[in-house]
Amino acid sequence: MKMAYQRKLDLQNGKIDLTHGSGGRAMVQLIHELFADAFGNEWLAQGNDQAILPPTQGRLAIATDSHVISPLFFPGGNIGSLAVHGTVNDLAMGGAIPQYLSVGFILEEGLPLSQLAEIVRSMGEAAKAVGIAIVTGDTKVVEKGKGDGIFISTTGVGYVPDGVNLSGDQAQVGDVILVSGTMGDHGMAIMSQRQNLGFESNICSDSASLHELSAALVKHVPSLRLMRDPTRGGLATTLNEIAHQSAVGMSLSESAIPVNPSVRAACELLGLDPLYMANEGKLIAICSAEDADIALNTLQSHPLGKNAAVIGTVVEDPHQFVRVSTDFGGERLLDWLSGDMLPRIC
Amino acid sequence: MKMAYQRKLDLQNGKIDLTHGSGGRAMVQLIHELFADAFGNEWLAQGNDQAILPPTQGRLAIATDSHVISPLFFPGGNIGSLAVHGTVNDLAMGGAIPQYLSVGFILEEGLPLSQLAEIVRSMGEAAKAVGIAIVTGDTKVVEKGKGDGIFISTTGVGYVPDGVNLSGDQAQVGDVILVSGTMGDHGMAIMSQRQNLGFESNICSDSASLHELSAALVKHVPSLRLMRDPTRGGLATTLNEIAHQSAVGMSLSESAIPVNPSVRAACELLGLDPLYMANEGKLIAICSAEDADIALNTLQSHPLGKNAAVIGTVVEDPHQFVRVSTDFGGERLLDWLSGDMLPRIC
Repeated sequence: MKMAYQRKLDLQNGKIDLTHGSGGRAMVQLIHELFADAFGNEWLAQGNDQAILPPTQGRLAIATDSHVISPLFFPGGNIGSLAVHGTVNDLAMGGAIPQYLSVGFILEEGLPLSQLAEIVRSMGEAAKAVGIAIVTGDTKVVEKGKGDGIFISTTGVGYVPDGVNLSGDQAQVGDVILVSGTMGDHGMAIMSQRQNLGFESNICSDSASLHELSAALVKHVPSLRLMRDPTRGGLATTLNEIAHQSAVGMSLSESAIPVNPSVRAACELLGLDPLYMANEGKLIAICSAEDADIALNTLQSHPLGKNAAVIGTVVEDPHQFVRVSTDFGGERLLDWLSGDMLPRIC
Repeated sequence: MKMAYQRKLDLQNGKIDLTHGSGGRAMVQLIHELFADAFGNEWLAQGNDQAILPPTQGRLAIATDSHVISPLFFPGGNIGSLAVHGTVNDLAMGGAIPQYLSVGFILEEGLPLSQLAEIVRSMGEAAKAVGIAIVTGDTKVVEKGKGDGIFISTTGVGYVPDGVNLSGDQAQVGDVILVSGTMGDHGMAIMSQRQNLGFESNICSDSASLHELSAALVKHVPSLRLMRDPTRGGLATTLNEIAHQSAVGMSLSESAIPVNPSVRAACELLGLDPLYMANEGKLIAICSAEDADIALNTLQSHPLGKNAAVIGTVVEDPHQFVRVSTDFGGERLLDWLSGDMLPRIC
C-alpha cells in the first residue's frame, strides 16, 4: 500500500500515541515506515490480516513467548532481540527448524519512537541472522500507566525433520547431562542493570539464538534425548521439570557447572544462586553416556558452546530429586524455584 | 507432570502475584490447575516449550493478535472469547481452516484468580466450538500498575485448501461488496459499557467465530475475491485498505448497510458514525456481480449471516476513494479513520 502522509514519522523526537493502535491512518504509517522497513519480506508485503505460506516439510512446530523484560535495553541486547532469540530457541529445543515468526506489540502511550525503532531494528537483524521471516503482526496501544513501554509477544512456526523425536520425557537412567556454557549470565546482567549494582561492565546477557547448536546436536548425537533452554528459574528449575517429565532423578557435580567468575562473585555478594538465574543463550542436552564425548565436542566446536560441559547424570530416584554434590564433599538438593527471585527477567 | 502442592489455587479469593510468572512452582501450579483443565489436549499435555503437531495439509496460514480490550468483560463476551474469535477470524478471512492456537498471557499482579478462571474457561469453550486446539502458551506477570488486568496474545495456525486464493488485492471493477450483518455492534457495546451510558441492555458485542461463514462462501461462490473482518476502524477503514490494495474505488449505498436500530440511535446521540465502529463477528466479502445472489443466499442461510446485505460495488477510481450515497440523494466520502475514536476496543 502506498499512501501519502502529511509528514514522515519523527523517529528522533516522536512518541507513540493512542492513534497508533487505532487501525487507522497512523497505524498504517507506523507499519509502513517502521515495521515493513525492518522486517520486509514477500509474505508481510501481502498486507492481509494473515500470512499465507508454502506447505511445511514435516511435522509442524509452534512455540510462543510474551516478553515483558525490564529494563528494555540491557548489556547484550534489548527486548526486541530477546523476543526473537527466545522463541527461536523454544522451537530449536524441540529439534525444529525455525521458519516463521509472528509478532504482537503492546505499546504504552508515550513510548519514544526512537526506542521503538531501535527495538524493531534489533528484531529484524536477529531474525535475519537466523534466517527466519517475520510474516505477520499486530500492534496495540494502551494508555500511559496501563503498560510499561513495550511488551512483545512472538510466536514461532517451523518444522521437525523426520526421525527427530525429542521430548522432556525421554531422559533415561544412566544418561549424561550437558550444558552449552556458563549459567546465570542473563539473570545477573538484568539484575545489575536494574539495581545499578556497578558491575555492569563485566556481566553481559548471553541472549542468542541456539538453532545452529541444536541442529548440530541433532545431526551428530544419535542418542540425543532432549534439549531445553534454562530460562526463568534457571538450570535448577528446568532440570526439575525434566526430572518430573521423565520420572527420574539427577545427580550433578557443582564444580563441573560452568559459571562466569564475575557472575559467581556478584551472586556471592548478593546471596543468590547462579543455578536459579535465567539464561537466554544456553541449552541443556541429555544423551546416552556413550555419546557424551561426541555431544561435548559438537557443542564446543561452535562459538556459542565453547564453555560446554558434562555436569551430571540421570539417576533412578522415586522422589525425582535433582541433587548436586558440592565442592566440599557435601550434597544439596536443588528444588524448584518456589518464590520469584527476579521478576520480569524476560 | 504430577506435583503435590501445599494447597490448591484459591479460585474464589486468590490473586495473581509475581511468583505466577517466575517459571517456578507457582507457575506450574497455575498451568496445571487452570490452563490444562480448560484447554486440555494431547499436544498441550506434551509439557515441552513447543508443540509438535502433524504436518499441515496445504499452504500454511498464520495470524496473530494482541488483545488489550477494556473492560475485560462486556455484553456478549470477554477478552478470552474475543481473543479466540479474533484470531480464528483472521485465519478464516484468508480462506484458511483454523487448526491450532498459541496463547501468551500478560497478567497484572493483583488480578483476581476468579476473573482469570472465567476468561480462561471462555477461551477453552470458544476454541472447542471452533474445533481448534490451544497447543502451547506462555504466562508472564508484571507488577501492579505496569499492566491492566490481563492482555492476551493469540496466534492461530491453519492451512489453506488447494485452489483457494483470496487476498485484499483481488477486488475488480464491477464486483459487488457484501457484509454479513449489522455494523458497529461491538464498538458500541464496549463504549456503552465503558461510559455507563445506560443503553447496555440493548446493545451486545457481535464477537463470534466466522469460520463456518467463510468456509461456506469459499465453497459456494466461485468468484469470491476476498473476505475481511471490519474490526478496528470499522467498515470504512477496512474498505479503504482493500481499495488501496486493489487500486480501485468503492461506491456504497448508505441505506443498504445494515445497522442495529439501537446502535444507530446511540451513534446519533453521541455524534458517532457506525461505519467507523469496530465489529468482531462480521465479514466483508467481495465477488463478481454474477455471484451476488449466491453469495447473499449463502450468508443469509447461516445464523451469523441472517442480516447480510449487498452494500455497494467496486468502481474505477484513480483516487481509490470509498464513497457512500446518502439516503437524501447526496454523497459523502468515507475516509480512513484518522484519529482514535475508541481506544482499546479489542
